[in-house]
Amino acid sequence: MTPQFGPDGSLRHMLSLKGFNRQQLTSLLDHAETYLVGHAHYAPRQPRLLGRTVALLFFEPSTRTRISFHLAALRLSADVVTVDGDTSSQRKGETVLDTVRTLEAMHTDVFIVRVAEAGVPDMLTEHIGTGKSIINAGEAHHSHPTQGLLDVLTIRQCKPDLGNLCVAIVGDVRHSRVARSTAEALQILGVGELRLVGPEPLLPAAAEFAHAERYTELDAGICDADVVMTLRIQRERMRDPAALPSDAAYFERFGLTAERLRAARPDAIVMHPGPVNREVELASAVADGPRSVIARQVTNGVAVRMAVLARIAESLSGTP
Amino acid sequence: MTPQFGPDGSLRHMLSLKGFNRQQLTSLLDHAETYLVGHAHYAPRQPRLLGRTVALLFFEPSTRTRISFHLAALRLSADVVTVDGDTSSQRKGETVLDTVRTLEAMHTDVFIVRVAEAGVPDMLTEHIGTGKSIINAGEAHHSHPTQGLLDVLTIRQCKPDLGNLCVAIVGDVRHSRVARSTAEALQILGVGELRLVGPEPLLPAAAEFAHAERYTELDAGICDADVVMTLRIQRERMRDPAALPSDAAYFERFGLTAERLRAARPDAIVMHPGPVNREVELASAVADGPRSVIARQVTNGVAVRMAVLARIAESLSGTP
Amino acid sequence: MTPQFGPDGSLRHMLSLKGFNRQQLTSLLDHAETYLVGHAHYAPRQPRLLGRTVALLFFEPSTRTRISFHLAALRLSADVVTVDGDTSSQRKGETVLDTVRTLEAMHTDVFIVRVAEAGVPDMLTEHIGTGKSIINAGEAHHSHPTQGLLDVLTIRQCKPDLGNLCVAIVGDVRHSRVARSTAEALQILGVGELRLVGPEPLLPAAAEFAHAERYTELDAGICDADVVMTLRIQRERMRDPAALPSDAAYFERFGLTAERLRAARPDAIVMHPGPVNREVELASAVADGPRSVIARQVTNGVAVRMAVLARIAESLSGTP
Repeated sequence: MTPQFGPDGSLRHMLSLKGFNRQQLTSLLDHAETYLVGHAHYAPRQPRLLGRTVALLFFEPSTRTRISFHLAALRLSADVVTVDGDTSSQRKGETVLDTVRTLEAMHTDVFIVRVAEAGVPDMLTEHIGTGKSIINAGEAHHSHPTQGLLDVLTIRQCKPDLGNLCVAIVGDVRHSRVARSTAEALQILGVGELRLVGPEPLLPAAAEFAHAERYTELDAGICDADVVMTLRIQRERMRDPAALPSDAAYFERFGLTAERLRAARPDAIVMHPGPVNREVELASAVADGPRSVIARQVTNGVAVRMAVLARIAESLSGTP
Repeated sequence: MTPQFGPDGSLRHMLSLKGFNRQQLTSLLDHAETYLVGHAHYAPRQPRLLGRTVALLFFEPSTRTRISFHLAALRLSADVVTVDGDTSSQRKGETVLDTVRTLEAMHTDVFIVRVAEAGVPDMLTEHIGTGKSIINAGEAHHSHPTQGLLDVLTIRQCKPDLGNLCVAIVGDVRHSRVARSTAEALQILGVGELRLVGPEPLLPAAAEFAHAERYTELDAGICDADVVMTLRIQRERMRDPAALPSDAAYFERFGLTAERLRAARPDAIVMHPGPVNREVELASAVADGPRSVIARQVTNGVAVRMAVLARIAESLSGTP
Repeated sequence: MTPQFGPDGSLRHMLSLKGFNRQQLTSLLDHAETYLVGHAHYAPRQPRLLGRTVALLFFEPSTRTRISFHLAALRLSADVVTVDGDTSSQRKGETVLDTVRTLEAMHTDVFIVRVAEAGVPDMLTEHIGTGKSIINAGEAHHSHPTQGLLDVLTIRQCKPDLGNLCVAIVGDVRHSRVARSTAEALQILGVGELRLVGPEPLLPAAAEFAHAERYTELDAGICDADVVMTLRIQRERMRDPAALPSDAAYFERFGLTAERLRAARPDAIVMHPGPVNREVELASAVADGPRSVIARQVTNGVAVRMAVLARIAESLSGTP
């Protein structure tokens, strides 16, 4: 059992989906659903984090994930403070750990952390006090567990019978923390078939994604797929961005157009973690088309983050 | 009827003052007055936006307008999130529309947008769902409707008989979204006389401001004026900033000093949208003097923004 | 009496600790203690600033002080808005005073200001209206009164008999606003002995810290001290940073290691205002060791800022 669970199985941190079993993951998704009212609105503001302090520590640029967590915390009535590259003491050499320790001494309860360096969220849990929580909001290219949760929640809403689904993840799988976390979640939930589709240099090392099949051609890769999950090209996370084909060349080979989408099942859904590079990963007609569930992913993102925060609230020390 | 009004005449978006008639504008100003208590304090916090989410999207630098909207939203009990150039994914190529769509999917109700590009607020209204609102917080040099509202509210408080007033707008009218919106509001309310005063290159094209007289000399332009509204020199919005006279040369010809102000009516008020370039547009003695209503403009700014938000709240979909 | 007190002795602004007498300072520390519950949590959110607006104006980078004030204000239920270098109109030439005046016109009640320029907080009090408050959150190398308060609160908690204490301030005293404010507070509370320890170029001018002894060797300086307060090296505030020894050379002479700490009393506490430059001012083993009260300083920081805000609330004009 990873340190993210307490001895009684309660959620203490959200570091990775690896330690979850199917029942735990399903229960968390069910919890998230309770915050969605008819897919059009969230349930009214809830007092679960009233009197609690949540700190957002985003050391990589982010709009959607930062604001998604911010809204999730506000909708549970938390006090929220933000530390980011622009306003922090990073330039004075303060390390992430020192920042977390400082905020902990100010009685911050939950730390939502995005960092480019691998291992930081785990390391932080070893140094903070019991009754405080770390949530991984994106860690190097390793993991992004709440994105994995929102992806499988979206898939489950559209295609509940996961055991019979074929999911194709298309694009820069190698540098994608989203792909890793979503694949973990799908594995735990027993997805029927998982495919990785992309140019050879963007597919992961052979040891990773053990249960997935690999395709280097889009048409074969998405053939009869129920879910086509496209990824953002992460030039910023590559060691040699120049090795990547140009945007036009990538779109020519792997860009999902309405025409190429015909290879998938007629009722296949199209996903993307955003922000979309239009006419690179996806044709706009597909991104904004009837098969796209991109907006729904975003909506679900707030709900799963509320669920994670609400679960973690039970492990926090003291009374707020 | 512009899309900013619903079929029943309710306010759905605040894009421009052009579509308002006198009754609508007067009613909105009256509403704003209800938030002002004896010009010294705002009325207590009101629950009108409780449970609603307001996003501030400022893609041009701003202190006063951003904070004015922020406080207006807080004082109506909204949840507020901020997206700005520093913390957003702009550098990852996300467009304003994609950002708005993402925030919409997180159930943001109101989008307060400042952009350097013309046409963006209108375009956004075509893509967001019914029951969501766009507020224009400054659009290129075209319009800044809440500034127009606060300006006419301030004028009306000081000089209620608008039909008999002479208002002189002095300075860089050509690049000023403030001048355009305030002139529109004054026209709708039937101002007696409107003058544009500035060096020829800073006066607008002949087709614009049809009902206004033009002056290229300060003394003649403000002669017997009841209201002298000075504008900020907008070097950042000019194509050729070097074409502008130096600050000293500008102040010599168009800077408002206590002495030159004598050309206006003895009870004339002096306005400026801020931030003032002291000793360029205005002598400090005038900016801080007894005829200045600059601080009152700022106070009124929060009140008109509360009124706009409160009106728009009636058009929002769902229950908060 | 400085302008920071009203005629009845009430706290109107927090500019400096100079004007405090022992009774006033003690009373403020006692007030701060009421927000600490068993050193593990703050007392529940209190309504003292409900309906009040607090603006954070940090014109120097800061994480800990900005967030400490932010949390203090939130925990007293204030509305908080932030102006900082990144999002402000500074680049449009707006001065600090104009920003404060603008925020005042929006009915901001309390201005928490950090500036690199000396004299700004005092100057601001001369220009804002009665019933508005300025709090100095760090002024040049002159003063940082709430840091002084949190330091003496921490000392008092650990070593209540201040009259018999020996306190050694070690490091870059010359450029330290922390040292000045803490020394003032210690003087007012009648500390037994105060020592300044550092290389000659980093000790203050002779006229300053009149009652303190000076040491240029660490071992002699901390010999039998009850409190060893180390300071951050402030390269950014030095006129000639190159004149300073290298980090390694500094650590060699003045860095506090567990071994060198043996010169102090066996129960001596070690303080640092943070963020710590590890292996420069302090060995990590000392910073994180059992004698360190650094985290407690941070905890006390929120409490003293709540106390200052709560006291000032009584002087604010109008009803919130």
